[in-house]
Amino acid sequence: MINAALIGLGWWGKNHLTAAQGKSARLRFVHGVSKEIDAALPLAEAHGFTLSDDLERALADPRVQAVVLATPHSLHTDQIVRVAQAGKPVFCEKPFALKRADAERSVAACAKAGIALGVGTNKRFWPSMVELRRVVASGALGRIMLIEGHYSNENSGMHFSAWRDSPDESPGGGMTGTGIHLLDAFVSIGGPVAEVNARLTTHRPGADPRDTIGVNFEFASGLTGYFGAVRASPIYWRVHVFGDEGSAEALGETQVVLRSRGGKTEVRDFPKVDSILAELEAFADAVEGRAPYPISPKEIVDVVAAFEGIIKSMATRKPVAI
Amino acid sequence: MINAALIGLGWWGKNHLTAAQGKSARLRFVHGVSKEIDAALPLAEAHGFTLSDDLERALADPRVQAVVLATPHSLHTDQIVRVAQAGKPVFCEKPFALKRADAERSVAACAKAGIALGVGTNKRFWPSMVELRRVVASGALGRIMLIEGHYSNENSGMHFSAWRDSPDESPGGGMTGTGIHLLDAFVSIGGPVAEVNARLTTHRPGADPRDTIGVNFEFASGLTGYFGAVRASPIYWRVHVFGDEGSAEALGETQVVLRSRGGKTEVRDFPKVDSILAELEAFADAVEGRAPYPISPKEIVDVVAAFEGIIKSMATRKPVAI
Amino acid sequence: MINAALIGLGWWGKNHLTAAQGKSARLRFVHGVSKEIDAALPLAEAHGFTLSDDLERALADPRVQAVVLATPHSLHTDQIVRVAQAGKPVFCEKPFALKRADAERSVAACAKAGIALGVGTNKRFWPSMVELRRVVASGALGRIMLIEGHYSNENSGMHFSAWRDSPDESPGGGMTGTGIHLLDAFVSIGGPVAEVNARLTTHRPGADPRDTIGVNFEFASGLTGYFGAVRASPIYWRVHVFGDEGSAEALGETQVVLRSRGGKTEVRDFPKVDSILAELEAFADAVEGRAPYPISPKEIVDVVAAFEGIIKSMATRKPVAI
Amino acid sequence: MINAALIGLGWWGKNHLTAAQGKSARLRFVHGVSKEIDAALPLAEAHGFTLSDDLERALADPRVQAVVLATPHSLHTDQIVRVAQAGKPVFCEKPFALKRADAERSVAACAKAGIALGVGTNKRFWPSMVELRRVVASGALGRIMLIEGHYSNENSGMHFSAWRDSPDESPGGGMTGTGIHLLDAFVSIGGPVAEVNARLTTHRPGADPRDTIGVNFEFASGLTGYFGAVRASPIYWRVHVFGDEGSAEALGETQVVLRSRGGKTEVRDFPKVDSILAELEAFADAVEGRAPYPISPKEIVDVVAAFEGIIKSMATRKPVAI
Repeated sequence: MINAALIGLGWWGKNHLTAAQGKSARLRFVHGVSKEIDAALPLAEAHGFTLSDDLERALADPRVQAVVLATPHSLHTDQIVRVAQAGKPVFCEKPFALKRADAERSVAACAKAGIALGVGTNKRFWPSMVELRRVVASGALGRIMLIEGHYSNENSGMHFSAWRDSPDESPGGGMTGTGIHLLDAFVSIGGPVAEVNARLTTHRPGADPRDTIGVNFEFASGLTGYFGAVRASPIYWRVHVFGDEGSAEALGETQVVLRSRGGKTEVRDFPKVDSILAELEAFADAVEGRAPYPISPKEIVDVVAAFEGIIKSMATRKPVAI
Repeated sequence: MINAALIGLGWWGKNHLTAAQGKSARLRFVHGVSKEIDAALPLAEAHGFTLSDDLERALADPRVQAVVLATPHSLHTDQIVRVAQAGKPVFCEKPFALKRADAERSVAACAKAGIALGVGTNKRFWPSMVELRRVVASGALGRIMLIEGHYSNENSGMHFSAWRDSPDESPGGGMTGTGIHLLDAFVSIGGPVAEVNARLTTHRPGADPRDTIGVNFEFASGLTGYFGAVRASPIYWRVHVFGDEGSAEALGETQVVLRSRGGKTEVRDFPKVDSILAELEAFADAVEGRAPYPISPKEIVDVVAAFEGIIKSMATRKPVAI
Repeated sequence: MINAALIGLGWWGKNHLTAAQGKSARLRFVHGVSKEIDAALPLAEAHGFTLSDDLERALADPRVQAVVLATPHSLHTDQIVRVAQAGKPVFCEKPFALKRADAERSVAACAKAGIALGVGTNKRFWPSMVELRRVVASGALGRIMLIEGHYSNENSGMHFSAWRDSPDESPGGGMTGTGIHLLDAFVSIGGPVAEVNARLTTHRPGADPRDTIGVNFEFASGLTGYFGAVRASPIYWRVHVFGDEGSAEALGETQVVLRSRGGKTEVRDFPKVDSILAELEAFADAVEGRAPYPISPKEIVDVVAAFEGIIKSMATRKPVAI
Repeated sequence: MINAALIGLGWWGKNHLTAAQGKSARLRFVHGVSKEIDAALPLAEAHGFTLSDDLERALADPRVQAVVLATPHSLHTDQIVRVAQAGKPVFCEKPFALKRADAERSVAACAKAGIALGVGTNKRFWPSMVELRRVVASGALGRIMLIEGHYSNENSGMHFSAWRDSPDESPGGGMTGTGIHLLDAFVSIGGPVAEVNARLTTHRPGADPRDTIGVNFEFASGLTGYFGAVRASPIYWRVHVFGDEGSAEALGETQVVLRSRGGKTEVRDFPKVDSILAELEAFADAVEGRAPYPISPKEIVDVVAAFEGIIKSMATRKPVAI
């Protein structure tokens, strides 16, 4: 059982508590950090953890064996480096960083400290995505030639903290909220990205926006791809890999559709899992040395590098080499 | 009952015969034209039509009230103009033309002659696509913001006449075979196209090719879109329209999936129809003045204009304004 | 907000707590009753309710406005009558009773006391079943001629309290666990039952049994029906109503399939709801006089009468008139 | 290539012609027999076969290597025996016979003559049913405990020859039209039947009837089962086998749904096949000694024996031992 500190007790930090506290036999939160300590007090009491208002206090707490960051994006790099310097394993919510240089700095600090590093792109743990990667890796699809994706989640009108609407914290329309998950899925299947060409189309700016993302990919491997996202559309997730022997499509959290030559189609439905609990327990495995975290430091950097390129391409309306 | 001539008795011309001859109460073929008249003789006998080797003979046949062209793409324009000059309604297989100027010349000739004009993008008549257009037109999806499509059909290895592999007759990889249907669907939903940005990625050239198409759209309306196609992948058709009240997805010939706010999903399956028979009977309706052909001359030109832009964008690897 | 007492804190009683406590704005549990008071203490502390070991104490608690029974089946009737005599509304878990005479006694006591009565056949509240009843009531299926059902839930190997395995408490194989829900569904659609013919086939008796139920129905309306259940099979729920204009099939908790003349099929998926929370809030509505409980006293008696007939038919292997 | 005679050129005989003539490389019809020879003449010309009005003429035709019977049910036995005596392999449309004694007489005659025997319950060849039997035989479902089926096909209003409405030729409501296919499926999976208990419920007699069939089974193996059928309901076919490790459900012609422990569900869709062509080619295989016909003589008799019992049970409203 890993005793962890949870830094940031906002919307997503609470999701960590709900998923793991009292439910996981691998990790529990013994220390929480919030800037708004009065507001967080009932939460700390209900979940039985020590509350403070500073990362340093959590690092100084001798019980704390690992740190989970659920803080605004722009704070991630400095916090990861600080936790690494303190010699404690660190799990960071997505997006890990907004710039490749930051991601590299974090990864280097963790490597130097010899600590486990996790990142919270939890859709990696969806049964549909686990199965999709398994099918692709099996070779059953033949030569892989195209990957397509889409993620809409009807979240445009949800009330978030102000920082989530700031262009500095959350550039690229829905890229930090939804697109990052597709990007992580694309890198997990296609490997490093060579070039992106991205467009952000805004039909109505401001709160509850109406906008769309379209991103075209060329991977270093020669594979090409595209994903789209519309924040305001009803929930829909699809990652579809096309080969010359078959195609495999992850739909939502739990379904994979396999199409093969001759017209045979197979739909596989898997029981739902709690993907936040799964990522925290995978992190616990990494902390205890049982298994490396499923997203490698190289993949983490590849994702952030492509992310940075996408934001730049949206701004310039031109292809960007990664 | 319309007495028609069928020009071209190759793979697709035979599909017209199979679909309509002896089955339609609206149209029958009384005259067929083939360059390879000896080879076509048994076909003519089995289906009971007069055989000749020249369009002019068909036009001179006094029984012939309308002409159906199933000839190589590059012949379409001159043949349409010639049929129009002869004052007979004309139905032309897709692609109608490869250049906007040709399409405009054909449309003008038909307008001048006052004759009905049909085009054979038969996927327009799939029950899934009829329903998708109905749902979009109903306004149920709210503000439309994105359209995505894909068509793979495992046809890369089929044996076709040599002209179907020629880059002049069939530019843009699978564009004349599969992409044209998606393009027609996109124009039917999004209206005229303002800009395209297209890529053709060839993994293995030659016969039974391994290649992919990816095309990004900006429509005059502000809507954006993307479609992909992989000739060698198992059959899969999808056209998905995303709005802020709902999304609607045509899957294959007979299914539409509707997703609406709050997580409700509806799958509608329709009985299959013979889309080739349906387009010929819609043409018969137009010839007899019962209803205009569902694809207007303006849409026909819009599709060809975008097609020409896509081929140019593939060659230059740059966006092309239409 | 209704302050309720929860009588019985076993497996299913805990499900009530999980579903409603702190989540419902309509009902909360302020008093719990358990025979094993020491074991229940931590539960009472965690959920903040007063604990006692006797129904009378709960009835004497002046805060208690309504009573929820999650006790062994054979205790239901006496407890309902006692609660009714105390003038408090009562909600009773299924099966409401094992004999028609008992059900009638309970219903009469509630009527005499003028109190609201609820029963916990929670599958009534599944979105699939709500939609199925809506479709049937709309007349869209034409003349209704047959109803079929199946419920398997892979629960044969679960560890329950001993009384759940007793033939007196739980007669008819899976009838009290799974069959009762189908029976409730059948009565809700077909009305009172005229005759049942039931078979219980036991392939392996004892704990984790291998057995099947098959029940044939003739309803008073002339409708006929059948349902089956296999405790050990993977989870599967189906209620299918066949008419001469269409058929409608509820599958699982959230899906309805509609088939209509000519081959059109429609699949409707609804968001999941917490059916235990839903039934408790429907009971709260009945307590407050906002709406009658969706299962009427007459339906409650009709279900128990048919249940008693099914058990008798299983024993005699003969049809039984209800 | 087997040269066959087709006896009976009504609705179903024509389906044989459409399925096989000019399409099969294994069997062609060189001789047709019809009582209404003038009406059948155009058919004979179009399909290029010799026409006569008597089975004896077909048997005397030296080209005829095998005989296919598509005649009224009550003629089957005498015709099969006669063909067998002539030493020619025989394929008989379903129902093979209406009485066990007749089936036994036919089977004995074929055995004595040493000829191949086929029966036309073509749903055996549906990809869904082939896969269902494969899954059951694999043992993947564990201990098999229940089989359920349903077949409605919206055919109640179709115009058939008068003999199809006669209670002598077509007893048991839809049993000869739809129920016989379910019965064949049940015997193919469950083996010989020990007892049936069947009800025919008639809501509206006469042409375009409104009636339902419900049949309960006990197989010699201890397995139990039920199937239902409603002639007037929209098309729906289901055969569902329940075991303690999983359940497998054939839906329609091309789909199988597999449910396994823990909530995993798999849907397999297969390309459609022409089941009439398939059964004729399987018969051709049997004639040429390549493979025995997939429905053994013992199974043929088991099906007819259960059929006879079902009709008797419907008449007596009592269980009937087979």
